[in-house]
Amino acid sequence: MKIPVVQKVLEANERIGEQNRRLFEEMKVFVINLVSGPGAGKTTLLERTVEALKDQYRIGVIEGDIQSTLDAQKIASKGASVVQINTGGACHLDGNMIREAIGKLDLTTLDVLIVENVGNLVCPVEFDIGEHFKVMLLSVPEGDDKPLKYPLIFHESRLLLINKMDLLPYVSFNVEKIRKESLKINPYLEIIEISCKTGDGLSSWFRWLKHKAKKG
Amino acid sequence: MKIPVVQKVLEANERIGEQNRRLFEEMKVFVINLVSGPGAGKTTLLERTVEALKDQYRIGVIEGDIQSTLDAQKIASKGASVVQINTGGACHLDGNMIREAIGKLDLTTLDVLIVENVGNLVCPVEFDIGEHFKVMLLSVPEGDDKPLKYPLIFHESRLLLINKMDLLPYVSFNVEKIRKESLKINPYLEIIEISCKTGDGLSSWFRWLKHKAKKG
Repeated sequence: MKIPVVQKVLEANERIGEQNRRLFEEMKVFVINLVSGPGAGKTTLLERTVEALKDQYRIGVIEGDIQSTLDAQKIASKGASVVQINTGGACHLDGNMIREAIGKLDLTTLDVLIVENVGNLVCPVEFDIGEHFKVMLLSVPEGDDKPLKYPLIFHESRLLLINKMDLLPYVSFNVEKIRKESLKINPYLEIIEISCKTGDGLSSWFRWLKHKAKKG
Repeated sequence: MKIPVVQKVLEANERIGEQNRRLFEEMKVFVINLVSGPGAGKTTLLERTVEALKDQYRIGVIEGDIQSTLDAQKIASKGASVVQINTGGACHLDGNMIREAIGKLDLTTLDVLIVENVGNLVCPVEFDIGEHFKVMLLSVPEGDDKPLKYPLIFHESRLLLINKMDLLPYVSFNVEKIRKESLKINPYLEIIEISCKTGDGLSSWFRWLKHKAKKG
């Protein structure tokens, strides 16, 4: 009895995700679903991105957290339109939450919408929220064994950003191993090495985002 | 309709968790549920712990992963009895999975059982697996904003191990802030700073474990 209920939830979510995507396309808004474990640096990445691109793109952010509005405040201060979703315990964002959040954003004023999902390498991947692409952020101190342990998130993402490259001298992390194992799971995955702290590699991420947003 | 089903799942889990705990008590096995986000260092902590204590305690480990047996192999090589649970996608361990895994361990030969949960700061906390205590591992590069963002795991844990203290010089992390905010959520939380890499602080963790296991 339990499994059919869960199935219906996922099916209903797919339908809402698809509706969201259609709306985004009508409104010509390019949408990223940003996923990572806790503390990989999603919020800092968004701060840097909004700072760098706000004069060229009108950027909206939907900020997903179990609770608190800490991250939303940081990003809003950089000049993005931000809506906070507090999931109140739920470990991921779903299509319905995004549909509600969109109601609080004026999509006609946006070019790019970035959704910062709850910090979790497992659950967010199973819920289509209507994004064009999932972008995964993995930070160097998390270790290079993640593709084998959490393959689905590597499989479903279009871009892998390897963050905190500045910590490479201090931890055991083999970039070539990550690249090889990630591409074995998902040959279409693009990979960019960055450090939100030093700024290294961020120009490649901005280029990726601009290029995709143009087509989106 | 959906919520009652979820309730039943959680209630059923509570019951099984309670049965597991009764069994552990009959068999005089002290049980830890080790929880953290991905890459905080649970496996390395277990390797160090088994190495250090295996001559004094008979240690069993139940290793929870979405897939792969990488971590189980590492820990088994240090001399623990290890059972791997591959959740096949599920984001947490539940009482039932632990009950099945126990069937593959001879509890009469164990003093301490450590369950390494799936790397996730959200879902594992909601499922009682029959442990005596939850121990939370948080690593310095994950950032000091975690108590406000993931309060439940701080609330439910008995001990917080702050790992990767060796990375403190290279990242922004305020130990006093974490201590203060964690204790605001859970005044009974004990906190130990460690580095599994350098070994700093591990003797305090071993002392905690020995002290609690005696009573357990």
